[in-house]
Amino acid sequence: MAVYTHLGAEELARLIAHYDVGELVSSKGIAEGVSNSNWLVETTRGRFILTMYERRIETADLPFFLGLLDHLSAARCAVPRTIHDRDGAAWRMVGDKAVALIEFLPGVSPSNPTPAQARAVGVALAQAHLAAHDFPMARENTLAPRDTLAILTQCGAAALATIDPHLPAMLDTGEAIVRDWPEDLPQSIIHSDLFPDNVLMLDDRVTGMIDFYFACTGAMAYDLAVTHAAWCFDDAGETCDHALGRALIEGYESVRALSEPERAALPLLAEGACLRFIASRAQDWLDTPEDALVRRKDPMDFTRRLEFYRANGQRAFA
Amino acid sequence: MAVYTHLGAEELARLIAHYDVGELVSSKGIAEGVSNSNWLVETTRGRFILTMYERRIETADLPFFLGLLDHLSAARCAVPRTIHDRDGAAWRMVGDKAVALIEFLPGVSPSNPTPAQARAVGVALAQAHLAAHDFPMARENTLAPRDTLAILTQCGAAALATIDPHLPAMLDTGEAIVRDWPEDLPQSIIHSDLFPDNVLMLDDRVTGMIDFYFACTGAMAYDLAVTHAAWCFDDAGETCDHALGRALIEGYESVRALSEPERAALPLLAEGACLRFIASRAQDWLDTPEDALVRRKDPMDFTRRLEFYRANGQRAFA
Repeated sequence: MAVYTHLGAEELARLIAHYDVGELVSSKGIAEGVSNSNWLVETTRGRFILTMYERRIETADLPFFLGLLDHLSAARCAVPRTIHDRDGAAWRMVGDKAVALIEFLPGVSPSNPTPAQARAVGVALAQAHLAAHDFPMARENTLAPRDTLAILTQCGAAALATIDPHLPAMLDTGEAIVRDWPEDLPQSIIHSDLFPDNVLMLDDRVTGMIDFYFACTGAMAYDLAVTHAAWCFDDAGETCDHALGRALIEGYESVRALSEPERAALPLLAEGACLRFIASRAQDWLDTPEDALVRRKDPMDFTRRLEFYRANGQRAFA
Repeated sequence: MAVYTHLGAEELARLIAHYDVGELVSSKGIAEGVSNSNWLVETTRGRFILTMYERRIETADLPFFLGLLDHLSAARCAVPRTIHDRDGAAWRMVGDKAVALIEFLPGVSPSNPTPAQARAVGVALAQAHLAAHDFPMARENTLAPRDTLAILTQCGAAALATIDPHLPAMLDTGEAIVRDWPEDLPQSIIHSDLFPDNVLMLDDRVTGMIDFYFACTGAMAYDLAVTHAAWCFDDAGETCDHALGRALIEGYESVRALSEPERAALPLLAEGACLRFIASRAQDWLDTPEDALVRRKDPMDFTRRLEFYRANGQRAFA
């Protein structure tokens, strides 16, 4: 959560002039995004989010990410559209970094979601899955269970044990998940990171799903399982709120019914979702000095969720 | 530059309900403020800056800081007013931290100011000095030369030399500044930190002077000297832009003429201003680990300015 690059007012005004959005009125660096810098920019014609992609690797994926926003937005999904410049380009370079101007959407992210909010998120997710069916581009999921297990293996049991003595057991659990992982579930483009932070709401209405930078081709039911793990527990993952879970899935199925194989796979898919967050958090934990200013997220928050799904199986989604 | 405290949407909505500002529509943590957290909050009735004071010590000064904003704003100075809650209070507590809701002002901070902009800043500064004359509260300047020299002395010559071999010489320079410091110049409430970052502008118009958290009782000409040091050099302090300096002072004097003693004191006052930023930067430098994520500001940027003022004397302000 930071702004990594200083963008002067004059430089910003010059950038904005390439878009048909009026004159610059205000700009505030906002504390969102992990690998990119973001500004809330106001012009005489509206408000926009300006995103600067700080890592070179992301630029190659921009046609996919920004094209997806436009595709979903055109299909009336609750996602911000990309503002194209006067030449029609979805992004521009500022120095050696790519920037994109994105529609600002109202709404706030719920910290303690209600069932009505979870239901609305299920609806919005299913709508996006259906709308993305005819999106012409694909992007491989680089954080599938085999990939996240490889991250954990690379960390090593000894290092994992320094975080928590129960963490190395996830290596065996991960192998079981990879072995049983279903490869033939219906696919679309999935968000794959739809935490409450990435959803803007006004009351019970989803006004925006944002931060599609993990979006990829994948099983739709997996995306629903990620969202279940992200929305239906307390932060530490100690208690599952079944009312939230039921509302999420009911909302989803009100738009797109799950097939029997999808329904049967949900517990395992949710375990795979947890494995992903365990792996990325463990890696960050080991990479981040103890005295760093950044708060490290505890991977054990997701081992607890994983164990819940493993212990409760289908009942977790009943 | 960070948001230190998580403020959930529901908690924020409850807080906003204490003010007559409509319903919460959006909230973004913004990357401003060094010792406080800030959010750009939008409601159905407007936009506001919500500031959370992270350090206990600041709360004691809030009647001064927030009262000053209201006083200057009522006098039509370009500063944001404080939004009072339904009970008339200028700030409230959220847990053990004070928060204030402050008017949002348009404008961006110039990175490469023009003489017309520097002139406008001089005008706005003088207007604030005059308007603050009848502000009924006082606050001691805790960063006067004797204080900043004490900070440098506490760092110690050996530690200062690890930053730059020329830095310890500032201990002797500082003693000379303290010895010659004029104590009888006309006073008012001064901003004392009016860097371009703390000024919002639209074209050549000052729309807002912000971040009054160093404001104190002090010599008005010292405030002008701080602003000269902050606006009229390249970042490294290698070159003084005389056109900017002349425009700043002309703008100031178009509202409030400097007395002869003030004019004569300007070079020394500017040296004192530089000493302050040298001391705070040196202290931060020594307190910040080399591998920290925060970029350390180089104190030598201000030793160069100080040496310029010392070498050029009155000519720096001619």
